[in-house]
Amino acid sequence: MKNIPSVAACCLLLFLTVSCTTEAGEEEKRPQKVKNVILMIGDGMGTAQIYAGLTANKGSLNLEKTTYSGFIKTYASDDYVTDSAAGATAFSTGHKTYNGAIGVDSTKNPVTTILEIAEKRGLATGLVATSSITHATPASFIAHQPSRSMAEAIAADFLKTDIDVFIGGGEEYFSDREDGRDLLRQLEENDYRVSNDIGEITSTNSGKLAGFLPVRPWSKDRGDQLMETSQTAVNILDQDEDGFFLMIEGSQIDWGGHDNDLQYMIQEMLDFDRTIGRVLEFAEKDGETLVIITADHETGGLTLTGGNLETGEVEGEFSTGSHTGTLIPVFSYGPGAEHFSGIYENTAIYNKMMNALELDAE
Amino acid sequence: MKNIPSVAACCLLLFLTVSCTTEAGEEEKRPQKVKNVILMIGDGMGTAQIYAGLTANKGSLNLEKTTYSGFIKTYASDDYVTDSAAGATAFSTGHKTYNGAIGVDSTKNPVTTILEIAEKRGLATGLVATSSITHATPASFIAHQPSRSMAEAIAADFLKTDIDVFIGGGEEYFSDREDGRDLLRQLEENDYRVSNDIGEITSTNSGKLAGFLPVRPWSKDRGDQLMETSQTAVNILDQDEDGFFLMIEGSQIDWGGHDNDLQYMIQEMLDFDRTIGRVLEFAEKDGETLVIITADHETGGLTLTGGNLETGEVEGEFSTGSHTGTLIPVFSYGPGAEHFSGIYENTAIYNKMMNALELDAE
Repeated sequence: MKNIPSVAACCLLLFLTVSCTTEAGEEEKRPQKVKNVILMIGDGMGTAQIYAGLTANKGSLNLEKTTYSGFIKTYASDDYVTDSAAGATAFSTGHKTYNGAIGVDSTKNPVTTILEIAEKRGLATGLVATSSITHATPASFIAHQPSRSMAEAIAADFLKTDIDVFIGGGEEYFSDREDGRDLLRQLEENDYRVSNDIGEITSTNSGKLAGFLPVRPWSKDRGDQLMETSQTAVNILDQDEDGFFLMIEGSQIDWGGHDNDLQYMIQEMLDFDRTIGRVLEFAEKDGETLVIITADHETGGLTLTGGNLETGEVEGEFSTGSHTGTLIPVFSYGPGAEHFSGIYENTAIYNKMMNALELDAE
Repeated sequence: MKNIPSVAACCLLLFLTVSCTTEAGEEEKRPQKVKNVILMIGDGMGTAQIYAGLTANKGSLNLEKTTYSGFIKTYASDDYVTDSAAGATAFSTGHKTYNGAIGVDSTKNPVTTILEIAEKRGLATGLVATSSITHATPASFIAHQPSRSMAEAIAADFLKTDIDVFIGGGEEYFSDREDGRDLLRQLEENDYRVSNDIGEITSTNSGKLAGFLPVRPWSKDRGDQLMETSQTAVNILDQDEDGFFLMIEGSQIDWGGHDNDLQYMIQEMLDFDRTIGRVLEFAEKDGETLVIITADHETGGLTLTGGNLETGEVEGEFSTGSHTGTLIPVFSYGPGAEHFSGIYENTAIYNKMMNALELDAE
C-alpha cells in the first residue's frame, strides 16, 4: 500500500488546483465592490458646454480623469426635449415621465426613488445643489408631486424621509409657508442640525444635516460653496459602514444657458468641474465609490465658433433660450464604471446605479 | 499494484487541470488579436448630427451596436476650429498640423501615414469615400501636399504607393490633368483594375482596384454606393492574411452642414449609418477587426429644437455655415475597442490604431 501516500498527495494537489482555479475564476468574474454611488448632474451640460469649460480652463478639466463614457437619450414621455424634472425623475426612478413631474410616473403615480430605496436598505443618503434644494433636479430624488412648481409640497416631502444630508437653497419653502407649518423646527425635532451658516455647515462631520444657503451665481461671491458642501456631505455620509448614495447638482450651468450668457455658463461649468475634482479625489482614495457625471439635457443650443486654448478665450453662440434634444454624455469612474459605456436611455442610469449598489426596488 | 491505475488517472486529471488553468489564465490576460482596423469618418458628424439621424430613423442607429465610446479634442495647430485636412492628418499621422495640410506636419514636412506604414509592413490598405478620393479626408491618408487645393498633385501621390483599393470620385484629377499625365493608364500598368462602372467595381473580389464614381448626394440616386463599395473594399482587403487598414468616409454629412440643409445632412448620416451596420456585421463575424467610428469636427453648429421619435420628424437649427470646435465622439467595436474610452487628442486615434495593429513608425 506504499502508493497510498502518492495517491493522497496527488488527489490533495488536484483538489487544491481545482479549488484555486474556481476561486481565481470567480474572482475574475466578480465585479469590484461598489459601496458608494455619487451621481453628479451638470444641469444643461452638453458636449459644447464641457468643451467651453475646458477651453476657458486652458485645455484641461478634472472631468478628463474619468475612465469611461457613454451617451444618454434624454427625451421625456411627452416631449422630445426634456425638462429637468422629467430628466432627474428618469435618473431617480428609471421611469420616463412628463415634463414637470417630480418623482411620479407618466400617470402621476409616485415611484420610489433610488435615494429612498437606498435609505430603506440602510445606506446613508444626501443631496447637494446650487439651486433651491426643492428645485426640479434634487426634488426628483426625494419628493413625489405632479408639478415642479409645488415647492412647498416638495419641501414637506423631505420630512417624509430619513435623508441624512441636504444642502442647497430654498429655506423659505420650509419656514415661510402658506400652511403655516414650521418645517425647520420639525427637522430639528427629527435630529437634524439645521443651519444657514456656511462655516457651521462645512464643519459638520456627523449626524443629520439640513443646510440652507442663498441661491446666487458663482460670480456673486458664491466661492467654492458647491465643492465645500459636497465635501461636507461626503464626510458625513462616509461615516455609514453600509455605504451611501449622494446626488450633487451643478444647477446653474443650465441658468447660464437659459440666459444665453456664455461667461455665466462657463463659470458654473468650472465650479462644477472643481467639485468633480474633489469628488474624484475621494473616490480614488476610497476605492469603493462609483462616480457618474452626466446631465439631464443641453441648454441653449451652444455652438463653439472659436476660442484659444492658451488664453482661455471662448467664442460661442447660443441658438435658443430653451433646452435641446441632443445626446448627452455620461462619464464614469471607479468600480463598475465600465457599465456606463454605450448609448442608452436616461432611465438606464437608474438601473445601472441600482445594480452597482445591489439594490432591489421590491 | 492495483493502485497504479488510480495514481495514473489522478495524475492525468491533475495534469489536464493544471494545463487548462494555465491556458485559460493566459487567454484571459492576453489581449485579443487585432488583425484589421477599419476607421470610419463621418465628416462633420457631431453629437447632434448623430441624434438627428437616430431620430429620423425612429429611435435607433447601427452605431448603437458599438461597445465603447470616448471624445476627441479636434483643434488644429493653427486654429481652434479644424478643417478636414488637419483633422484627417491628425488621424493618419499623429501630428497636429495647420488647416489645409495634407499628410504634412505644421512645418510642411511630409509625415508617413498609418496607411503607408501598414502597406510597408505587408498589410492590405484601402480608402473609400463619397467625395472625390483626392478630397481632404481620404487624401490625408495617402498624399503629402502643403494644400488641400492641390488635387492633381494629390492624385499623383496615389501612384507613389501600393494601396490595394480606392473608391470615390475625382477621376478627372487622374485623367484630365494640366501636366498631361494619364494616371489612369499608369494605374493599369501598375496592375490596378480601373473602373468607373459601379457593377464592375462591386463585383471585384481580389487584386488591386481603382474605382471612380460620380460625386453626388444620396438624394441624387447615389443609392447604397457607400455601403456596397465599402463591402467591396473589405472583400478585397480581407484576402490578405496579414490583415488590412481601411478608411471609409461618409463625406457629405459635412456638406449638408455647410449648406445648413437638415434633410441633406440626415440622409447622408443615415447612409453612413447603413454602412456602419454592414461594417459591424463583418467585424462581428471576423472577430479580429477593430472598428473606430468618429468625425474630424462638427459642421453647422446644429441644435435640435424638437422632433418625434415615432414619426422620424426632426426640427433643427444651424448657427453657422462653418465647422465648430466642440468635442467629437468616438465609438469603437471589436478587439482593443476599450482603449478608445476617455477624452483625448485627435492625434491619439493614430497612436491607438498603430498600437492595435502593432505597427511602428520607425
